[in-house]
Amino acid sequence: MSLNTFGQLFRVTTFGESHGAAVGGIVDGCPQGLPLQEEDLQEALDKRKPGTGGAATPRKESDTVRILSGTYNGLTTGTPIAFMVVNENQRSSDYDTLKDVFRPGHADWGFFQKFGMRDHRGGGRSSARETIGRVAAGAIAEKLLATAGISVRSATIELGGIPVQSIDLEGAYDRPFYSADASVVEAWEARVQEARKNNDTLGGIVQTEAWGVPAGLGEPVFGKLDAMLACAIMGIGAVKGVEIGDGFAAARATGSSNNDPLLPGGAFASNHAGGILGGISSGQTILLRAAVKPISSIAREQSTVDIHGAPVTIRVGGRHDLSAIPRCVPVHRAMAALVLADMLLLQRRLGRS
Amino acid sequence: MSLNTFGQLFRVTTFGESHGAAVGGIVDGCPQGLPLQEEDLQEALDKRKPGTGGAATPRKESDTVRILSGTYNGLTTGTPIAFMVVNENQRSSDYDTLKDVFRPGHADWGFFQKFGMRDHRGGGRSSARETIGRVAAGAIAEKLLATAGISVRSATIELGGIPVQSIDLEGAYDRPFYSADASVVEAWEARVQEARKNNDTLGGIVQTEAWGVPAGLGEPVFGKLDAMLACAIMGIGAVKGVEIGDGFAAARATGSSNNDPLLPGGAFASNHAGGILGGISSGQTILLRAAVKPISSIAREQSTVDIHGAPVTIRVGGRHDLSAIPRCVPVHRAMAALVLADMLLLQRRLGRS
Amino acid sequence: MSLNTFGQLFRVTTFGESHGAAVGGIVDGCPQGLPLQEEDLQEALDKRKPGTGGAATPRKESDTVRILSGTYNGLTTGTPIAFMVVNENQRSSDYDTLKDVFRPGHADWGFFQKFGMRDHRGGGRSSARETIGRVAAGAIAEKLLATAGISVRSATIELGGIPVQSIDLEGAYDRPFYSADASVVEAWEARVQEARKNNDTLGGIVQTEAWGVPAGLGEPVFGKLDAMLACAIMGIGAVKGVEIGDGFAAARATGSSNNDPLLPGGAFASNHAGGILGGISSGQTILLRAAVKPISSIAREQSTVDIHGAPVTIRVGGRHDLSAIPRCVPVHRAMAALVLADMLLLQRRLGRS
Amino acid sequence: MSLNTFGQLFRVTTFGESHGAAVGGIVDGCPQGLPLQEEDLQEALDKRKPGTGGAATPRKESDTVRILSGTYNGLTTGTPIAFMVVNENQRSSDYDTLKDVFRPGHADWGFFQKFGMRDHRGGGRSSARETIGRVAAGAIAEKLLATAGISVRSATIELGGIPVQSIDLEGAYDRPFYSADASVVEAWEARVQEARKNNDTLGGIVQTEAWGVPAGLGEPVFGKLDAMLACAIMGIGAVKGVEIGDGFAAARATGSSNNDPLLPGGAFASNHAGGILGGISSGQTILLRAAVKPISSIAREQSTVDIHGAPVTIRVGGRHDLSAIPRCVPVHRAMAALVLADMLLLQRRLGRS
Repeated sequence: MSLNTFGQLFRVTTFGESHGAAVGGIVDGCPQGLPLQEEDLQEALDKRKPGTGGAATPRKESDTVRILSGTYNGLTTGTPIAFMVVNENQRSSDYDTLKDVFRPGHADWGFFQKFGMRDHRGGGRSSARETIGRVAAGAIAEKLLATAGISVRSATIELGGIPVQSIDLEGAYDRPFYSADASVVEAWEARVQEARKNNDTLGGIVQTEAWGVPAGLGEPVFGKLDAMLACAIMGIGAVKGVEIGDGFAAARATGSSNNDPLLPGGAFASNHAGGILGGISSGQTILLRAAVKPISSIAREQSTVDIHGAPVTIRVGGRHDLSAIPRCVPVHRAMAALVLADMLLLQRRLGRS
Repeated sequence: MSLNTFGQLFRVTTFGESHGAAVGGIVDGCPQGLPLQEEDLQEALDKRKPGTGGAATPRKESDTVRILSGTYNGLTTGTPIAFMVVNENQRSSDYDTLKDVFRPGHADWGFFQKFGMRDHRGGGRSSARETIGRVAAGAIAEKLLATAGISVRSATIELGGIPVQSIDLEGAYDRPFYSADASVVEAWEARVQEARKNNDTLGGIVQTEAWGVPAGLGEPVFGKLDAMLACAIMGIGAVKGVEIGDGFAAARATGSSNNDPLLPGGAFASNHAGGILGGISSGQTILLRAAVKPISSIAREQSTVDIHGAPVTIRVGGRHDLSAIPRCVPVHRAMAALVLADMLLLQRRLGRS
Repeated sequence: MSLNTFGQLFRVTTFGESHGAAVGGIVDGCPQGLPLQEEDLQEALDKRKPGTGGAATPRKESDTVRILSGTYNGLTTGTPIAFMVVNENQRSSDYDTLKDVFRPGHADWGFFQKFGMRDHRGGGRSSARETIGRVAAGAIAEKLLATAGISVRSATIELGGIPVQSIDLEGAYDRPFYSADASVVEAWEARVQEARKNNDTLGGIVQTEAWGVPAGLGEPVFGKLDAMLACAIMGIGAVKGVEIGDGFAAARATGSSNNDPLLPGGAFASNHAGGILGGISSGQTILLRAAVKPISSIAREQSTVDIHGAPVTIRVGGRHDLSAIPRCVPVHRAMAALVLADMLLLQRRLGRS
Repeated sequence: MSLNTFGQLFRVTTFGESHGAAVGGIVDGCPQGLPLQEEDLQEALDKRKPGTGGAATPRKESDTVRILSGTYNGLTTGTPIAFMVVNENQRSSDYDTLKDVFRPGHADWGFFQKFGMRDHRGGGRSSARETIGRVAAGAIAEKLLATAGISVRSATIELGGIPVQSIDLEGAYDRPFYSADASVVEAWEARVQEARKNNDTLGGIVQTEAWGVPAGLGEPVFGKLDAMLACAIMGIGAVKGVEIGDGFAAARATGSSNNDPLLPGGAFASNHAGGILGGISSGQTILLRAAVKPISSIAREQSTVDIHGAPVTIRVGGRHDLSAIPRCVPVHRAMAALVLADMLLLQRRLGRS
């Protein structure tokens, strides 16, 4: 949960920047005996590739993943699973005009203040390409979760201010924008066209659910399941808000309307809590939403400063997506899966899962 | 960030349940030479005491804190600072009727599912009394932050669905409900009376700001400052949502309206980002909001089950607050302070703070 | 394994210095349902009390331990177990002459260089009193280990250069010096008398064994069981060397004489390895030895410098033991137990213990 | 310090097994601005290559390292530094006869007991090839240490029971067996020939020193510098004992002979302590020794069992070294460097280095 490693027992460490030799990561702590092929990672990675849905850049990357260690005869061995994707199609010169300028709304400024230097090309370490490591690791986490009957899904439920009318997460990957609802796709496409015409960008909301999570995951105080999920999801680029269950609406509810009555058999009459009570899973569906801000790279003139502190104006061209959605959707799913895998292993220490 | 310890370099481990011998904690990693007296902790703890504002319980606790180690001649020594508050005024019998029943909306169920057993008295480890450890630790963190010119403030900005009209965090501790705005207090009091009459409870929203945070705190990937703050704040009991800067409103904005233009001298023309870009502080005010759900203990009849799975109805009497607000406000401040103290020390490793 | 916390899943954080208000610790991560009473901790702590064996100081401390949290009805609850011992009988004035002087062979110098300040009284945080937290935590760890059929024992096998002739760890607590062999006690007593007459101090060797450890504990690379044990034991004050199994003698052996042939049924024909191969327990007895240097506080004139860098001579009076042995013996046992408890919980994540 | 990650602030995570696609690692937490080229890593790795000194295998591996991330224009950027070495020249068939057999003295047995499965080829994760990740990471650590004037050296001081007569660590890499003394090389070569004739293997002792370490590194209780070094060194394959300073000889000394008198100017009259007092560096040379057991793979008939528990005899052929020395010498240096780099960054949090 610090620096470049996430998780306590099921841990991923990612590496790589957009214009270095490769990006990837190491999953450490994955139990032995899980079926795992490069195809499993590739399938997940292909979901975050450019060209998916109407908001993406035309940039082409093959993003072929290779597993370097940790499997034998198609099974995990319990040792670290390293994987990488070689960076191709890097046109560093695209970024030459940005060399000495801080882009508004971007990590540039803070990164430079932090380290006193930066690799300005394509966002460097702050590039969305870093999420390749997360998505591949999430796919491994899902292999573990599957053995416990747990599955995780994410979908877009709002784009450019237009919410979905209904929510079906399972089919989202088959729809444009990874939408939870086919009926809004046309309106979203119009909204995207409009933004593109305005040289502007859009934000939206991503919903993530976890099904089949047994009651008892999460720790009562600092390792609360909702706290870990909030950490994981807020740590995705462009996310500015996270809600569990009713979220901010719960702040306006009363106790009598917000409480979820328990029913015999471990069921509940409602799920305002989003499947987590006191930081521990209740056995209901885990439900969370994340606010994704509009991408900060816009093809409009903006005021900013250069590294010498002088005011300048920039116009960020290059091959940029119009929204982090839908390419970030698999990242939300992956981060939620990583948290749940970690919590599942943590719970096993108690001899109760 | 797991189990009962929070932080990487500036770390607090809390202990205690509502009806055990004592609650408290150990702050480990606090640098040497900071002035620290028991009065500093006491002052912070008194802010979370019952009886503050109109939403609190009449229960009386003196909550006198004692420092057990880590200071010498009024200064921190760099060694662990342990502190504790003895639990008094425990009427365990108040909870006898809850012994075999799970309270809706409460941690009871998950806790029991996790451990297969529980201390049912007053919420056990999930009790709000655990936050004594956090608030005292936060007061120590603020001593460190003060040496770097950083201060943290929290206040209530919405209660029972009624938002404040203006925001002044600095004076909040002098107002009922720790309100950011004196003008709404009367309306909140009426809302509280109404809820009390209905045997119901209320939620609200707490805003936290950090001033004077230098640019560069936070790590680019998994230790993002916003991710750590989200972890810290979502890990407070009853919190169901966290926003940084414009939060969910940013999801509906466009890039051109959401970007904060940089100005010469490290300033910005706006602060939609809430002081954090790419997970790293920008030098602007850090701003976050948390949704606090209504307290689940209501004096109304509710459907639930007992530990044998049989349906029962309960009515939770006892000495319960009507809202986690305002007593949770100092906890929000403390958790934010703990994150910033940790990040400040982490940044020092780079030789740049 | 850093700062003041030891362990990953079964963790202890200790606090306290010799002349503060109290010493103690928090055990976090201990599973629920273990029988635990204050008497269990007291019994272990009494073994490290002054006055045990012929090498100890006449200083009297009652060292009564109190459990502050984490148990209910005599069972652990899975929540943090805090405990403390109030510091009594502190004659700070005993240390006034040491206020500005660095004692040779002591932590004084490094501590002062580290923090730029120090609590000079009784060694401050470097005092052997800190081990109260370790011994109490170790007693809790042993409760967990007992459920898995694991027991840990330590004993003195050499004092002042005189080794034991035979080794019986089980009965050691009943013998002077916690000796593994009654037959050397007389010679050790003579050696101690001689050292006392010379105003000098003695070192020795402590052996620790763990019985009933199942094969498979320990991680293959950085969490090797022997590495963790070495960390734990070398981290005890005055320890300058650690050996596993044949230790340094193995460096002089050949492969054919050092290998332990496997026998059917999980047995081995010998145990040169000390029960650990490739960092993982083999199912044989875990065996390690630690070199304990002579206590540095001697009642002889020694050359040193003061905090201004000026050369001075000191003679360390006060109530000092003649050897860390035997009072450190329970600390060795405790640290080994803490490692094993942690490794046992870590192994459970794999679903194989 | 657990699983496959070592260090708290300067961290390395290694991956890879002898017969997977690649071995390597990620160094996370390395500060920005250090000069770093692939040649720096290659130079260190070449020191652990087969064919160095008279005790090594004839197996040929080019072991060309590639940096995948974390540098830009020849400088570290503060982001994760990933590197890898492709595994070549893998003759898996060499290991076919070992598929169902546990080799005495080897990690086979424990590994299989731990995971219930194993990659038997070449030791799998327990292979010495894993140390490629450590050595490369150590070279990066040395870049950081150099900025603080710290250097680390290791050399062989005993082989097959024959100790060196004098110790010069600086020139060791230029001598056969990485010997600290040229005068013993001939005797060692004779000893190796004899062992080879007997189809046997040899152990020895490796000494490591760190020069220029400032006083104040290390934490007073669980993060003691000597404890971390012991953890690091005992975690190297084949190490069965670790000594700091006088080590086991200190157990036979008296306080008056073992104490190192302080002299004006931060100097000491002797260094029995090996540069560490109370777990904190004193400013003197850090000195430690490690006992390296003879390699367990011997070309002699040995009794063992197969995975079905049946007694069998094996004779381990293949391309095995005669001793872990000298190829392990760079690993000792690397591990010590990693500890010191971590401690150096940890100390910076206090604003005192």
